[in-house]
Amino acid sequence: MQQMPLWGETLRLLVEIAGTAAFALSGILEGARKRLDAVGVCVVGFLAAFGGGTLRDLLLDQRPFFWVRHVEMLWGVLALCVLAMLFLRQRHFAVTERAIQWPDALGLGLFVATGVHQSLMLELPALVAVLMGLITGVFGGVLRDVVCNEIPTAFHDHRPYALCAFAGAWVYVGLWHLGTDGWVALAACVTVTAGLRGLALWRNWQLPAWKA
Amino acid sequence: MQQMPLWGETLRLLVEIAGTAAFALSGILEGARKRLDAVGVCVVGFLAAFGGGTLRDLLLDQRPFFWVRHVEMLWGVLALCVLAMLFLRQRHFAVTERAIQWPDALGLGLFVATGVHQSLMLELPALVAVLMGLITGVFGGVLRDVVCNEIPTAFHDHRPYALCAFAGAWVYVGLWHLGTDGWVALAACVTVTAGLRGLALWRNWQLPAWKA
Amino acid sequence: MQQMPLWGETLRLLVEIAGTAAFALSGILEGARKRLDAVGVCVVGFLAAFGGGTLRDLLLDQRPFFWVRHVEMLWGVLALCVLAMLFLRQRHFAVTERAIQWPDALGLGLFVATGVHQSLMLELPALVAVLMGLITGVFGGVLRDVVCNEIPTAFHDHRPYALCAFAGAWVYVGLWHLGTDGWVALAACVTVTAGLRGLALWRNWQLPAWKA
Repeated sequence: MQQMPLWGETLRLLVEIAGTAAFALSGILEGARKRLDAVGVCVVGFLAAFGGGTLRDLLLDQRPFFWVRHVEMLWGVLALCVLAMLFLRQRHFAVTERAIQWPDALGLGLFVATGVHQSLMLELPALVAVLMGLITGVFGGVLRDVVCNEIPTAFHDHRPYALCAFAGAWVYVGLWHLGTDGWVALAACVTVTAGLRGLALWRNWQLPAWKA
Repeated sequence: MQQMPLWGETLRLLVEIAGTAAFALSGILEGARKRLDAVGVCVVGFLAAFGGGTLRDLLLDQRPFFWVRHVEMLWGVLALCVLAMLFLRQRHFAVTERAIQWPDALGLGLFVATGVHQSLMLELPALVAVLMGLITGVFGGVLRDVVCNEIPTAFHDHRPYALCAFAGAWVYVGLWHLGTDGWVALAACVTVTAGLRGLALWRNWQLPAWKA
Repeated sequence: MQQMPLWGETLRLLVEIAGTAAFALSGILEGARKRLDAVGVCVVGFLAAFGGGTLRDLLLDQRPFFWVRHVEMLWGVLALCVLAMLFLRQRHFAVTERAIQWPDALGLGLFVATGVHQSLMLELPALVAVLMGLITGVFGGVLRDVVCNEIPTAFHDHRPYALCAFAGAWVYVGLWHLGTDGWVALAACVTVTAGLRGLALWRNWQLPAWKA
């Protein structure tokens, strides 16, 4: 992503911060709903925010982890957890959940793109790169739900989420193989993922159920 | 496993394909039973098929993962998931479950043997090699059940599964230390594991419950 | 921890053995309560005893794992599982649970200290070292509860556990940066963690609930 203009870099950073905060908040809300204690709420927030990227780095054998290089993100999420516990009340839950849908969708697109990008840099096959993108974007939420003793939302709410990420990941792979600039592919991946996710929420698309 | 004859190599490949398909189908069936959406069914199928081997490679620090070297296995399981969703109906579930018992038992034996083999090549102690074999064979199913929010079947259905794998793994370790050819040890491990598993199913052996 | 006197080394080993046994017993008891079969009880015991340290080594990319270097610990826990299944009856459960509270608290302190120590040796930032300490001490229990299909006790019983470890970990980091001898920092970390945990149990401290 060498040729990205400065305003693009700033925009990317903003999306990353907004996306991480949205992921963390989804964990905090779920922890609060499950009546976890203060420690549990923080852990679930951290898992939701950093779980997917950590799993990607673990599978791709990349060290140091991204949150070791950017330890200020850990402090940020910790602050967010404390602030949420001080100021967030039950009547804010539904509002917050609606408010984080857009940063969540944008963050999903960005995290998927980084997972695909890292895998392609390591010359992994296209399908593997797509799977790594999905893992980066989706498995934070999966870990969050597993620890909260729920079936992962991404797998049974019948609303397209991983599927939008899947489409966005293939867009990134395609543009990469066409030799497009890294930041164009990134922008396209985020746009497709977040756009499809937005459409799915707006038109209330449903994933097909099992025809049993 | 250098001295394996060609027909042995072909046989091994057939068992690997059959075993992977059986593991994936066990995940697909469980996902369908839990009424997951299309994405969830695929993910659980993938976890059941590749989870154990991935965990082994992660613990042994072996890269690239086996499914990166054999990316056609990923495509195969993806195709299997789509086909299952198109053609498998509820009335087929019980039949399918009985039909996959044998390939599942053979696959279990093979996956255990590969886990033990890799560990012994890395000169790990015997007990560690046996545990790695168990993890390879059993933890795909464990991940499948954890994501589906169930206590892992292997741990509470009181029917010997991991125990057959345990016996097979020790057979492999024993023959290895006697200096037997790799493919003889492999065949013995698969025979013992699958044979014990078959006996256990046929005679309806029960693991002792906790004498509380 | 080079300058530790011999009696200190012996004490450390005793705490490590007692702590590992307490962790394993917590897993065995939970497995027995959930009516797992013999295999399941053993696996949950192993996860509780070795899960946290393994996750630490995986995240810090340290091989061989500590239980590969000390394979006698695996044999010890295996023996403990078998003995527990033979001799532990339901009426012993409550007694055992009370009896393991102290070794558990001491073990928690020791495991946290080793996680922090390893991270500081790798020159990781202070917050990351603290998190690694927490993961070492707490995530064995988390894995135990996740496999048993429970919300992790450490996250929702409203009794300080991870928080005591958090305090102990910061003590270790602080003393390290002051240049204190390794074994003094270790002793302080164990004392603070186990002391706070003991106080919390004795005075029945409660973590604040979510003010919903």
